[in-house]
Amino acid sequence: MILCDIGNTNAHLFKDGEFSIESLEKFLAASFDDKVYYICVNDALHPILKKRKNFVDLEAFIKSDTPYKGIGIDRVCACKSVYDGVVVDAGSAITVDVMSRGKHEGGFILPGLKMYEKTYALISPRLDLGVDRDVSLNTLPKNTKDALSFAVLKSVILTIKDCAKSKKIYFAGGDGEYLSSFFENGVFDKMVVFKTLLNTVEELKKEGSI
Amino acid sequence: MILCDIGNTNAHLFKDGEFSIESLEKFLAASFDDKVYYICVNDALHPILKKRKNFVDLEAFIKSDTPYKGIGIDRVCACKSVYDGVVVDAGSAITVDVMSRGKHEGGFILPGLKMYEKTYALISPRLDLGVDRDVSLNTLPKNTKDALSFAVLKSVILTIKDCAKSKKIYFAGGDGEYLSSFFENGVFDKMVVFKTLLNTVEELKKEGSI
Repeated sequence: MILCDIGNTNAHLFKDGEFSIESLEKFLAASFDDKVYYICVNDALHPILKKRKNFVDLEAFIKSDTPYKGIGIDRVCACKSVYDGVVVDAGSAITVDVMSRGKHEGGFILPGLKMYEKTYALISPRLDLGVDRDVSLNTLPKNTKDALSFAVLKSVILTIKDCAKSKKIYFAGGDGEYLSSFFENGVFDKMVVFKTLLNTVEELKKEGSI
Repeated sequence: MILCDIGNTNAHLFKDGEFSIESLEKFLAASFDDKVYYICVNDALHPILKKRKNFVDLEAFIKSDTPYKGIGIDRVCACKSVYDGVVVDAGSAITVDVMSRGKHEGGFILPGLKMYEKTYALISPRLDLGVDRDVSLNTLPKNTKDALSFAVLKSVILTIKDCAKSKKIYFAGGDGEYLSSFFENGVFDKMVVFKTLLNTVEELKKEGSI
């Protein structure tokens, strides 16, 4: 059995206690002997995935009781596995969701770190410099690359801090481990989405639905 | 005489006490009878502007004594007109610079509000919704459009607040007036760049250099 969380850039896989990440291209080109239980927020891929016999879309089996309209199924899964805390999934987008005593209070969506880099390149060739993840956040930048890097990291960190306050923060996604290092109350938890997928599959098996 | 600050998307003009903004396309297509004294951060336009007989590039006459390497001439001009305070120029990019007793302490560069919109559209068609400038920043969003709008505004505002503290903040640029409304210590000052251009032209005329 493979559990799979398919995003806009990558597919995150969990099999036999091991995690892996594949680009969508590579993931779609691969063939799997195991049964693949997946969720997918990338609308363009649904018709392709539905044709695969050993693929099971779990979305219809995962109930969301959030008042938030149009929330992605990946965020629903992440939130369901946290009773009280903040969930940050840092991929192509950085989704931030607040849970209080099992209730989803709402959330917001920042661009992912790599998307900020693309944005600066679109503004001007002078700003096509990438984001230096080791930039100092304690002194004001004195060159362009630091100026971009500082702005991206400071704005993302401050916005998460402002909403999380003293709550525990669960980071997931490709930039989750890196971002978690800026937060005393932050942990990197690769299982935050997969816990719900695993529980869902186990319940469906128990019911005999799959 | 026309003073002109040329950016990556628009040209800002000042003539006889009146301000106007033109798209680059329209600005380049127009012909001017008056002498045009300009600064320009858009490298692609320099060869075109240099060919125009009544255009004078002021950049070489404006001295910068900042330790910041590679700063844009528009930011140099804005900083020179503020002895103590923070300058925010909110156009295609949002540049933020800190001045303390006439000294440039450094600064950073966030994407402009419209560029954030383009970034979300690049991430996913689901996020191609624009930024609602009237979104509430006091409650956590419960739908996707609010989630993007909240994230953009909150992250920009918090990052400016964090660096400005109690300093006076001078806002300029297309989104300057809107952003200034979030700051008790903020003023919208269209003249922040043009003050330096005006002083430079007056000095050069006095010297007989132009």
